[in-house]
Amino acid sequence: MLIFILAESSLETIPPELRQYKAIRMQAMKRGKKPKDLLLDSSRHHYYMRNLKDAEKRGRPDIIHITLLNVLGTPLNKEGLLQTYVHTINDKVLYINPEVRLPKNYNRFVGLMEQLFTKRKVPPKGKTLIKLRPKTLRELLQEIKPTFTVFFTEEGEPVELLQFMKELSKHEKLAVVVGGFPHGTFEKDHLKLADLKVSIDPEPLEAWTVASRIIYAYESAINLPTMRINKIKHIDL
Amino acid sequence: MLIFILAESSLETIPPELRQYKAIRMQAMKRGKKPKDLLLDSSRHHYYMRNLKDAEKRGRPDIIHITLLNVLGTPLNKEGLLQTYVHTINDKVLYINPEVRLPKNYNRFVGLMEQLFTKRKVPPKGKTLIKLRPKTLRELLQEIKPTFTVFFTEEGEPVELLQFMKELSKHEKLAVVVGGFPHGTFEKDHLKLADLKVSIDPEPLEAWTVASRIIYAYESAINLPTMRINKIKHIDL
Repeated sequence: MLIFILAESSLETIPPELRQYKAIRMQAMKRGKKPKDLLLDSSRHHYYMRNLKDAEKRGRPDIIHITLLNVLGTPLNKEGLLQTYVHTINDKVLYINPEVRLPKNYNRFVGLMEQLFTKRKVPPKGKTLIKLRPKTLRELLQEIKPTFTVFFTEEGEPVELLQFMKELSKHEKLAVVVGGFPHGTFEKDHLKLADLKVSIDPEPLEAWTVASRIIYAYESAINLPTMRINKIKHIDL
Repeated sequence: MLIFILAESSLETIPPELRQYKAIRMQAMKRGKKPKDLLLDSSRHHYYMRNLKDAEKRGRPDIIHITLLNVLGTPLNKEGLLQTYVHTINDKVLYINPEVRLPKNYNRFVGLMEQLFTKRKVPPKGKTLIKLRPKTLRELLQEIKPTFTVFFTEEGEPVELLQFMKELSKHEKLAVVVGGFPHGTFEKDHLKLADLKVSIDPEPLEAWTVASRIIYAYESAINLPTMRINKIKHIDL
């Protein structure tokens, strides 16, 4: 079992400091929502974010969207061997049912996240596919209780991932933590939660690139691709 | 050198049959464009696409966007060892400069593609980062002249990709072809262009998942991760 955590993710609704801007109130009105229920998106709100604390780490739902699409579409997830969580920069946690089929279209994903932040779960009725809870990264890890926790960060020890994962995958309940933000690094207090910090490339890589490589390396370490491929061969016989 | 081709990609402007719909003309007007210069997007135009030929394979720019972000962000591309092409369902080819920094935001990507289909290159002035040419997949392959061409398709021979790529990467100029469409398979005439057809999983995988696995497996086969990681270690010394 692999636990994938996208941490300090750049996903939030319009913060109080921005809700009084006329342009943002107009955007909200057009969509029949209140400003507090709109997702912050630097591609639309960049101008208004300039005085926001940590502005360069905020308002990037695209990162969470693309990373989740990469993660949830893997054979590992289809096999039920992956648990996925999104921890946000404002200490909320998204619990993601592995069976969720996320919208591939960005604007629909934004709509879904807005519904999630308002209703605390989606869909609002029936089987919950994503739920949202206020929770710190520390609390999340205390709840999951991984046997080993690895942070992927530029300041980590350089490793060749495929080789490294062969060792790492022996941990019964391995948690991997990837940053869900565009630039910079994890908060110091978060890095303290790591059993190990590693780096897989000398240059910064996008969150979705790191995520898909981790999962593929883990699959390979547990021999999943061969097992699944043999299924086809047996059916063919 | 690896040649990555996303083929029969679900990327086109509004086709003639749809340009007379009032809703589509309104959408175009709002954006100060003509209907023929808008990108077809099934999340907006699904209703109007119902009588369109091959409708289920069309109007999915999100697939091209997410796949290109996955491909262009790889260490292989940063090393200048990857050439990327998008062939579209209507036989146009996008030539992609490896140095292009694609918009991460979907709506901006759509705007960029609309500019590309209108102007045939982006940016319109200065160094070209993407150019568009009318060209079939056969013509593209004749132009590139790969020494070996592999199609990734559900009907292919099942292979364990990491192992398989160790052999495959010995080809001097290897072309890999992945479908840039949501469902179904390649056209028969296109499959004839393959030296080999392979499948890496018994279930259909998203284009971006296949693409990022191919590139990572290729990097691993040519030992790129270790070489790059050693760079960090040398700097540290």
